[in-house]
Amino acid sequence: MLSDIEISRAATLQPIQAIADRAGLPLQAIEPYGRHKAKLDLDWLAANPAPAGKLILVTAINPTPAGEGKTTTSVGLADALNRTGRKTMLALREPSLGPCFGTKGGATGGGHAQVVPMEDINLHFTGDFHAITSAHNLLAAMIDNHIHWGNKLGIDVRRVVWRRVLDMNDRALRDIVQGVGGVANGYPRESGFDITVASEVMAILCLANDLHDLEARLARVVVAYTSDRRPITAADLKASGAMAVLLAQAIKPNLVQTLEGTPALIHGGPFANIAHGCNSVIATRAALQLADYVVTEAGFGADLGAEKFFDIKCRQAGLAPGAVVIVATVRALKMNGGVAKADLAHEDVAAVERGAVNLVRHIENIRQFGVPAVVAINHFGTDTAAEVAAIERCATAHGTAAILCRHWAEGGAGAEALADAVAALADKDAGQFTPLYDDELSLFDKINTVATRIYRAERATASPAIHAQLERWQAAGHGHLPVCMAKTQYSFSTDPLQLGAPTGHVVPVREVRLAAGAGFVVAICGELMTMPGLPRTPAAEHIGLGPDGSIAGLS
Amino acid sequence: MLSDIEISRAATLQPIQAIADRAGLPLQAIEPYGRHKAKLDLDWLAANPAPAGKLILVTAINPTPAGEGKTTTSVGLADALNRTGRKTMLALREPSLGPCFGTKGGATGGGHAQVVPMEDINLHFTGDFHAITSAHNLLAAMIDNHIHWGNKLGIDVRRVVWRRVLDMNDRALRDIVQGVGGVANGYPRESGFDITVASEVMAILCLANDLHDLEARLARVVVAYTSDRRPITAADLKASGAMAVLLAQAIKPNLVQTLEGTPALIHGGPFANIAHGCNSVIATRAALQLADYVVTEAGFGADLGAEKFFDIKCRQAGLAPGAVVIVATVRALKMNGGVAKADLAHEDVAAVERGAVNLVRHIENIRQFGVPAVVAINHFGTDTAAEVAAIERCATAHGTAAILCRHWAEGGAGAEALADAVAALADKDAGQFTPLYDDELSLFDKINTVATRIYRAERATASPAIHAQLERWQAAGHGHLPVCMAKTQYSFSTDPLQLGAPTGHVVPVREVRLAAGAGFVVAICGELMTMPGLPRTPAAEHIGLGPDGSIAGLS
Repeated sequence: MLSDIEISRAATLQPIQAIADRAGLPLQAIEPYGRHKAKLDLDWLAANPAPAGKLILVTAINPTPAGEGKTTTSVGLADALNRTGRKTMLALREPSLGPCFGTKGGATGGGHAQVVPMEDINLHFTGDFHAITSAHNLLAAMIDNHIHWGNKLGIDVRRVVWRRVLDMNDRALRDIVQGVGGVANGYPRESGFDITVASEVMAILCLANDLHDLEARLARVVVAYTSDRRPITAADLKASGAMAVLLAQAIKPNLVQTLEGTPALIHGGPFANIAHGCNSVIATRAALQLADYVVTEAGFGADLGAEKFFDIKCRQAGLAPGAVVIVATVRALKMNGGVAKADLAHEDVAAVERGAVNLVRHIENIRQFGVPAVVAINHFGTDTAAEVAAIERCATAHGTAAILCRHWAEGGAGAEALADAVAALADKDAGQFTPLYDDELSLFDKINTVATRIYRAERATASPAIHAQLERWQAAGHGHLPVCMAKTQYSFSTDPLQLGAPTGHVVPVREVRLAAGAGFVVAICGELMTMPGLPRTPAAEHIGLGPDGSIAGLS
Repeated sequence: MLSDIEISRAATLQPIQAIADRAGLPLQAIEPYGRHKAKLDLDWLAANPAPAGKLILVTAINPTPAGEGKTTTSVGLADALNRTGRKTMLALREPSLGPCFGTKGGATGGGHAQVVPMEDINLHFTGDFHAITSAHNLLAAMIDNHIHWGNKLGIDVRRVVWRRVLDMNDRALRDIVQGVGGVANGYPRESGFDITVASEVMAILCLANDLHDLEARLARVVVAYTSDRRPITAADLKASGAMAVLLAQAIKPNLVQTLEGTPALIHGGPFANIAHGCNSVIATRAALQLADYVVTEAGFGADLGAEKFFDIKCRQAGLAPGAVVIVATVRALKMNGGVAKADLAHEDVAAVERGAVNLVRHIENIRQFGVPAVVAINHFGTDTAAEVAAIERCATAHGTAAILCRHWAEGGAGAEALADAVAALADKDAGQFTPLYDDELSLFDKINTVATRIYRAERATASPAIHAQLERWQAAGHGHLPVCMAKTQYSFSTDPLQLGAPTGHVVPVREVRLAAGAGFVVAICGELMTMPGLPRTPAAEHIGLGPDGSIAGLS
């Protein structure tokens, strides 16, 4: 059997001009980056409006080490929609560079359902994340520089909340003491680095309507507080203009292709815990302008990814999704049913049935947003017919079709039944999308609403200090913002070991953060890692150049 | 009078395909990055060898705050060579992003002698520096990760010499304590960040012959020592393969154009103090393969820039420059003659004559390398005829022509006389380039040779510890390497205030560093700053987007 990279490398890519042509983009609407990547010209898009296509969200059950294949299914579905005569584009997130050198492979799909060129997309791509890193760190440098030169704004050096970022897994930078070495180096203080996908600049780029909205959002970013708790913004430091300049190219969506030539916009990649985990609004809108169907994806399982897609991205951008695909696998449901990873190859229908409670809860949750859903069973070679039938029975019993897909092995041809079902749902226009909660609800009530209605917890809890902080933000005019829940992706609860469909738990809010530029309040529930480390044997050790200069070891 | 950016923005750029065509590059030999930038395909270059053109180095007197215009003169000369019927290309360094937000404007020439698109070149360009940052920091992460997971190699955490880099002016990162925060974050230790142009990876990229040589050089990089002083390399950490993968695009030269359509390769930009300060060997060779004349540039004044160009770059790459242009200005020589910057507008022939000792010494120095030279007087509006004549007299008295150039105001048309003189020198093939010292000389004797023959010091001095360190490196097989002198650029001496042509000074070597991958030993003489800070009012405060989305404030 061929590996992902062998399939990817064996493919004959079309020139990016041909892909642009397929998407209805003339030459002047794209800026090529090499032969197989391009950026879209935002001015051309603005000058050529068109009716919006149907938006289809691909989400999933809670992830397990068994793998679900959300990106693979998104690619397979888009290829299948095109194969069945429906003009379709993909809108996906850009992978982060750092994790490629840790344990994780790339994030460009798999098997015969991939976006290409895989190496480019997984590595520097068109430089968007580097631009975000630069913009973020310029602001950081300007904060310390302002303090160094006299601190006119009266920043409390103990209350600088803006850290620095790198697109690298580097645990040694999580917590640092900076500015040591004497007077010329400024005031020593504790700080640290997050990975670039955790930057608020990333979330801003992904939620901005255009370059001017981007600059306005950057201006609102709160970077520090004075000793009397007055917020200091990027605008106060006169940093937002230069930051926007650094992002002027990065804000343009990137066009690539699937192995079957489906045009794909891959743009932005905010963390799905402390941020909202979806590709950029600009890319989604561009795809909707260019195609009749747009397949997009949200991070992690539906409890985190779909909820934020609806309550943050769709709310802010005024998007109305037409259908949702919930990806499930026999293997992952077996793990939710208590089977160890080593035993997944044995048929165990009862375990599938036990684990399907996870799927059912996601089906019910999606229904709360008023969008019709279908389940995609992403086929693995070890699945048995009886196991697949168990998922189908369970989904049907809860009013949702479940369709076996073989896009990993067969490409778009393996997902045509899914494409027909999804298109039928979207074409009916039966959905009536509504966010889970109103803007007017208090910040804590929003948190509690997600915890009780999506996570099915008894309640959310928070210390008096956190309640007081939320009330201060409400008083300062941030009360209308949606909340961005940061919790483990492995469970509906905050305990990663509670698989299936736990009940009776509480959701303790450990910390809250204001992302005034992105436009949400982050509620951190449980442990949170915003700078990964490398494993004992990093993938980097096996990445290198072949004798012909080709890239080896990147999977 | 129009500003640089107004001139640049008013220009009608040719599509990069047209510039490639002018350079004899077919479509398959370039990878476009947007409409006005491209990367060259190294495979095409290897498959299409051609006789090498003449290499012309542009260097300068010691820099002063009055400005010399080395890049401007390089651009004007190349345009003039083309105007006078000589097929010519430029090979220049890429500007660093960080300093753009400090005090310094861009580094793309000025007036009517600029390379364009100016904003792109000064900002992210094609992402080369970001790739270098990533490769450098991956190695750093792998060092700390190795220590964290048990430190099999026995790295002495007090002797890790590999720091991290960012392309940002950020004094707070010069010295940090990393790895604080507990067991999960590794072992706390002191370290810090340099600016990306100071990375040895940058120097390696600029000296490598090809991608495989790049990987081999990366493998040799010494990152740390064991407690018994055994060196630990990037190869020991199995990092060099992944680093090379991160640099696979960055190693390809970038093609842009001058305002007059001269093809320019802009590629690499190592610091001119702790590194050798020239664009990449690959770009210089590519230009020599494509053109009859190649104009290139070295950092700082000729004492640092030209010496390193000859003794490091030409030595390693086997290049034989055909002619040298020494850029001087009336204003800068007046400053060397003791005039304050505020008084430069008044005619002062005596001051020019006093300051010309600086020029004369550079003329004599270049002669030591066996390459014929000509002086370019870069004209400023305040220069008087008598002042210009003083420079001409002085240069002629020392056997070298001095030619007034008006390329800043007139473009290539203003530098035709210079072009004729330079081409005549190069065409004579009278030069017999030889480096200043032999490979076999001891490391300290090499340092002393540069100090006495180029800086005209009485001698170089070093502590017994430094002598012992140099001897250890010689014993370990690094004795054949050239030396890379790091001293102030403002004076022949190590005191930035000693302008003109100081004598009787000594050159104290404060520290030595091994750059085993780049292939030189750095001798640090005097204060050295490898991470700049931002000024009280950073340029970033005035950089922003205009109402039409154009970039304002970047000069």
